[in-house]
Amino acid sequence: MIHRLARIIPSAGFEGHSGGLRVGIGDDAAILRPNTGSEMAISCDSCLEGVHFHAKLQPPESVGYKSLARATSDLAAMGAIPSHFLLTLALPPEKTGIWLDRFAKGMARAARRFHMNLIGGDISRATRVLVSVTVLGKVTPGKAVLRSGARPGDLVYVSGPLGRAQLGLEIVLRGLSGSASLRHLVQQHFYPEIRLRLGNWLASHRIASAMMDLSDGLSMDLPRLCNASGVGARIFEAKIPRIVIPRQLHMPKLDPLGLALHGGEDYELLFTIPPSEVRRLSRAPGAASLKMVGEITRTREILLLGSDGSAAKLPSLGWDHFRGVK
Amino acid sequence: MIHRLARIIPSAGFEGHSGGLRVGIGDDAAILRPNTGSEMAISCDSCLEGVHFHAKLQPPESVGYKSLARATSDLAAMGAIPSHFLLTLALPPEKTGIWLDRFAKGMARAARRFHMNLIGGDISRATRVLVSVTVLGKVTPGKAVLRSGARPGDLVYVSGPLGRAQLGLEIVLRGLSGSASLRHLVQQHFYPEIRLRLGNWLASHRIASAMMDLSDGLSMDLPRLCNASGVGARIFEAKIPRIVIPRQLHMPKLDPLGLALHGGEDYELLFTIPPSEVRRLSRAPGAASLKMVGEITRTREILLLGSDGSAAKLPSLGWDHFRGVK
Repeated sequence: MIHRLARIIPSAGFEGHSGGLRVGIGDDAAILRPNTGSEMAISCDSCLEGVHFHAKLQPPESVGYKSLARATSDLAAMGAIPSHFLLTLALPPEKTGIWLDRFAKGMARAARRFHMNLIGGDISRATRVLVSVTVLGKVTPGKAVLRSGARPGDLVYVSGPLGRAQLGLEIVLRGLSGSASLRHLVQQHFYPEIRLRLGNWLASHRIASAMMDLSDGLSMDLPRLCNASGVGARIFEAKIPRIVIPRQLHMPKLDPLGLALHGGEDYELLFTIPPSEVRRLSRAPGAASLKMVGEITRTREILLLGSDGSAAKLPSLGWDHFRGVK
Repeated sequence: MIHRLARIIPSAGFEGHSGGLRVGIGDDAAILRPNTGSEMAISCDSCLEGVHFHAKLQPPESVGYKSLARATSDLAAMGAIPSHFLLTLALPPEKTGIWLDRFAKGMARAARRFHMNLIGGDISRATRVLVSVTVLGKVTPGKAVLRSGARPGDLVYVSGPLGRAQLGLEIVLRGLSGSASLRHLVQQHFYPEIRLRLGNWLASHRIASAMMDLSDGLSMDLPRLCNASGVGARIFEAKIPRIVIPRQLHMPKLDPLGLALHGGEDYELLFTIPPSEVRRLSRAPGAASLKMVGEITRTREILLLGSDGSAAKLPSLGWDHFRGVK
């Protein structure tokens, strides 16, 4: 089965030529030659049926694509360039045929897009699909951008509109993903864009003081960045880039600001820069969609400033596995 | 929760001192400095409730210990020295308290024993416990021992008696693991020994021509090594090191030879050496328990030679997830 996957997903075996790989898929472990000119970034992430996705609502191609994209977004958040990955997969026997092939095709699409090779893995049986991906990448020594570098006075940016993935999920949950006029809105939920070029640019130009990717929603993730940096933040409600909700979806629970603050899985980058770097930032890849949403404060709290001048603590209502509610 | 784990399990954060780690647990990804004097070995393995273990029959400490030991055994099989690991964990809310602490203690024990540090991970909610571990190690450039190096005429060795873990499992399944006279027999099932020193010695002295660890039983794993090498093997039934089955367990299905051939999870090393290396092998760590069990043949089949001179193809009856039977 590993061999079937390796035929579909870009992979490298013995003496593969790519990125210093000496032994790839098929042995007890993969062997990588060290690259003296760079540091290695490594992260892992999982995608579980019934937790991260509903098998009946999500095409297998999307499960494959998104499992790799989610994990690789963590490399983008360090400023690293992805190179290799390992796949741990467990699935029920009835999904080892067509489902697995479609899963592999989706993962292959992500691997080609991110220029990554599968170098190892593990497959076992389970009652539900479980995917865990470990990703490897390289970053120029000393240039990885951590969560902990934000300083009072730094400006807080996001790399694009927030709430898109959550809106996609809501469309899927309402059974409307087949609607021609809504289908494109499901893309960011099924096949998330991740910000590899931007992340690497911000790191290699030493512009970002702190960075992470937005996986659980701004209201969950901004406090994490602030905690790591020992700071707080002031966010301007009016500046948060949000999405337009199509008329046919208007429902009380779906407001653009709520989606932007608390919606998960956008995989946009959240980063801070010193004010002196604003000019250089305008040359970043995709600079037009970068939005300044607030500033870092010495006071360790997260405030949301309303357009009317009001200030309120931002409640963390994003995705928390062990609260289990949005 | 990650922080609770990191307090119990040896782990390294920012600017950890160990093994070239620059950024450890707590950021989007870990960052490792390359070590120019060695290659990096990397592998992943999973341990799933209901598949690899029964939560009611296996102490949480064992689940933690074994999850790391299983994965690290793959490094032993390459001759690598383990250094770091990442943990993907999913568990039901009711296991986030005492169960998780006990799991972490078991994993900590393995990490200390193997000199490994936790550098990253991911925790989510699930209905059953899922553990996936990615392990990193180092090996002298060019010295990793692959599965593919066995040549006709090479001798086949195993690093110790086979069937111990399977016997332990049978004792547990019969509800006898509490019995004082049987308890020690459950050790290899709950807290497997892995052969790190031997694996590294065989690699660094360039003695083994091929090597792997025995996770699914000799009858499943030897064909894998032979396939990778493009060879076959002849195994001498009388030479297979087996265990003594306690009198009170005598049952028709439990015979020492069957356990040795088809029992899984021993994590002993299976390796081949050219006959000219037999003398040097006597200086290996734990040389007394190394047993020559057969030889590599040009003919691509696996034969079991009986003491009576009979020869039969060895059926692969070890662990296969998608056969689902032993």
